[in-house]
Amino acid sequence: MSRDVSDSELRPALHRVADMIADDLQDVGQYPVMPRVRPGEVASMLPGSPPSEGESLNRILDDYARIIEPNITHWNHPGFLGYFSITGSGPGILGEALSAALNVNAMLWRTSPAATELEERVCDWLRQMLGLPEVFRGHINDTASISTMLALAAARHVQPGLEVRELGLAGRPDIPELVVYTSDQAHSSCDKAAMTLGLGLRQVRRIESDEQFRMRFESLVEAVEADRRAGRRPMAVVATAGTTSTTSVDPIDRIAELCHREGLWLHVDAAYAGSAAICPELRDLFCGWERADSIVFNPHKWLFTPFDCSVLLMRDVDRLKSAFSLVPDYLKTDEEDVTNLMDLGVQLGRRFRSLKLWMVIRAFGVEGLRDRIREHCRMAQDLASLIDEESDFEVVAPVPFSVVCFRWLAGDSPEQQDHRNEALLNEINAQGPVFLSSTKLDGRTTLRTAIGNLKTTDQHIQDAWQIVRSAADRLAADQLR
Amino acid sequence: MSRDVSDSELRPALHRVADMIADDLQDVGQYPVMPRVRPGEVASMLPGSPPSEGESLNRILDDYARIIEPNITHWNHPGFLGYFSITGSGPGILGEALSAALNVNAMLWRTSPAATELEERVCDWLRQMLGLPEVFRGHINDTASISTMLALAAARHVQPGLEVRELGLAGRPDIPELVVYTSDQAHSSCDKAAMTLGLGLRQVRRIESDEQFRMRFESLVEAVEADRRAGRRPMAVVATAGTTSTTSVDPIDRIAELCHREGLWLHVDAAYAGSAAICPELRDLFCGWERADSIVFNPHKWLFTPFDCSVLLMRDVDRLKSAFSLVPDYLKTDEEDVTNLMDLGVQLGRRFRSLKLWMVIRAFGVEGLRDRIREHCRMAQDLASLIDEESDFEVVAPVPFSVVCFRWLAGDSPEQQDHRNEALLNEINAQGPVFLSSTKLDGRTTLRTAIGNLKTTDQHIQDAWQIVRSAADRLAADQLR
Repeated sequence: MSRDVSDSELRPALHRVADMIADDLQDVGQYPVMPRVRPGEVASMLPGSPPSEGESLNRILDDYARIIEPNITHWNHPGFLGYFSITGSGPGILGEALSAALNVNAMLWRTSPAATELEERVCDWLRQMLGLPEVFRGHINDTASISTMLALAAARHVQPGLEVRELGLAGRPDIPELVVYTSDQAHSSCDKAAMTLGLGLRQVRRIESDEQFRMRFESLVEAVEADRRAGRRPMAVVATAGTTSTTSVDPIDRIAELCHREGLWLHVDAAYAGSAAICPELRDLFCGWERADSIVFNPHKWLFTPFDCSVLLMRDVDRLKSAFSLVPDYLKTDEEDVTNLMDLGVQLGRRFRSLKLWMVIRAFGVEGLRDRIREHCRMAQDLASLIDEESDFEVVAPVPFSVVCFRWLAGDSPEQQDHRNEALLNEINAQGPVFLSSTKLDGRTTLRTAIGNLKTTDQHIQDAWQIVRSAADRLAADQLR
Repeated sequence: MSRDVSDSELRPALHRVADMIADDLQDVGQYPVMPRVRPGEVASMLPGSPPSEGESLNRILDDYARIIEPNITHWNHPGFLGYFSITGSGPGILGEALSAALNVNAMLWRTSPAATELEERVCDWLRQMLGLPEVFRGHINDTASISTMLALAAARHVQPGLEVRELGLAGRPDIPELVVYTSDQAHSSCDKAAMTLGLGLRQVRRIESDEQFRMRFESLVEAVEADRRAGRRPMAVVATAGTTSTTSVDPIDRIAELCHREGLWLHVDAAYAGSAAICPELRDLFCGWERADSIVFNPHKWLFTPFDCSVLLMRDVDRLKSAFSLVPDYLKTDEEDVTNLMDLGVQLGRRFRSLKLWMVIRAFGVEGLRDRIREHCRMAQDLASLIDEESDFEVVAPVPFSVVCFRWLAGDSPEQQDHRNEALLNEINAQGPVFLSSTKLDGRTTLRTAIGNLKTTDQHIQDAWQIVRSAADRLAADQLR
């Protein structure tokens, strides 16, 4: 007899969860995006020790509805406009539920033929959708942080004469510092990769960006030259298509040319904006990425796929494989000429992530996905126009995709303005219907509105702007009092 | 209007998936564990390009049932006895489905208070269940490969005078090789961590194991001394509680003493066998792990939680935080004294993995989980007894938990015996009802039977043994012909 929960208890619970999910997707917009909860409040509702005896699924689901669901930040809310706004879409949720039930570990082809071959096929679909050459091979990781770390590990691995995999970097007076170049707008994952790989934060050159927050190409060239003169070894450039703060795009084409000339690895971080490349009219922004050595693109960001799903596209996947493949006796198999996903990174275990991505692409279709991306970009333009109409607000960066950075022009000094914008953000987020985040641009506090949820409509954007406007008016009035 | 799939299409699809999951959990035992499919066969059933227009969820689910489900290796099958046998249990599946719908990214406390606080609470429940001191703090990663890499990164970070985070390891004639010690039975994740962190495979000392496949303590002591004499710096020991091939347990107590004396970091890999420590009568095997600096334990292995869920327990979590914390402007928040999970590793994005673990622990209760672990251990003992009764089979390693390693004593030479055992494995797995894996012990091919699925019953084990016995008889008869 199975020692799992019985079918007579589980099946109704699965149907209850089906309705909870459908209800939540319908109703989520009615909750505050960010729960009104203080640190420690959720913990105080949870027993300090685990239960000794098992409890009914219904009771657990009741507690879920009472303790957990009201106290999460609702990333799947149409008013979630912070960080990068994402969507756990219906088709993706179906895929994740099935994947949990199958519970396959696709570490080897043998341990799940369909999971391995679907992953390869769906990554190739993505490659075609992005307009990248056939030579690129994709596989799925959990996060862009890992994808970028793997890419830079491959870049380190192919450094001639180093044999880092075998010999490491420590205790070797013969080898120079290995330098990675990226912009001052690049994602922190680049720094984390350098820390983890033993390159060191000091060997990450944060090249200054221009007035549109794109890496200054001339500064990059100078930095590479300076490092060569100093006896260091320039290793890789991480160019960003869609930076985290403003979604600016580095001059990839020129950077690719430099990398080719100087023998540097080019990694393109298109984790968020890669989705836009499925629209032919937006693809010009990515010009040059087809010459990259590696590209990371996260369908869990702006392609409506539940978190986590990060695709690493490699020009020569064998370079990744030779950096990481290592087959212990207990994992040797007979199959030849098959992909064993464990060969492509640190993680041995591989979740069946392609299932949800397959369902998302099929349910919406390429044209349907393009429509949705275009809608989000249009909504961002509309919001930018709304902001531009106000004399006391300013859009502070170009809007190439679906993120709008703006600032309230309040306060007499830059410091005061920062302070007022921080207060404004707190006031906005305290209302409930929307959630925005902030960043610093040129050292100044800036608010961000990211559009990426499928349930976000024009009405939500108009409402969001009204909330911002009213909050600013209230704060201004308080100031006068 | 939402651009996601409409409720009128999604809700019935969610209910259909609820039944598909319940049916699959009931019927999975009727399929062959390993699908009868050749490399490329699944790919040939998938269109070479993505669909231009969206398709109905029902059609996609039909294709799932036709192409995907029959062609996975059924890890959730009662006859899956390979590698480490796992369970995607009912309660865990509910948790994963809900988690996909919430789609939270718990990178910051603010980005999901309940996900952050539930993760902390549930990891503390586990700590109590494992009998570990209060000082340990846990958090959840995807895999043990990542958990072990993070632990060794922390070990590297606390090396006095190195400042690896800032300065890296390359181009520094002042620093010595950093050495990691583990046994010749340890998991390959230790090697992958050394490769990734820039320590190099050559700085991993694979200490020989004894006749019971436990690290030889004396050899460890000698290796540490030899490295010190040679001017290298011993950094960390990775001791295993439950090795991958035989589930042997290293002499953790003595190793902990050595690490204390020599200032070495002790990381305990209890990814699989940690579950056994919830049973007080089995906890003696783990003696000494309470002195470890870090411990990895995977509830997704033998605690009935769907993949992925790997818990890293840190004696001093601030050492991990200081190795990895890095807060860019776009992620700065006001909250003080809260846990921001992104500080604890490479990955910025954090899936809501504690939800499924919470549901599993509550649904079964601590006593219920203990019962199930004990049952699996008893079944392994029973299988070992069955094997011991046969004159032409041999159990080749102790059975402390739920894995039985055995060998068919066929063939006149060691090479012939290896060959026969490989043929036997293929013959067994070709039958369908069971799936075993193999390893090498002392260089000799060995078959492994791992018991860890909740649906596996005494009958399945008896049937499995009959399949092994008959397959051996057939091969022996063929040989005589």
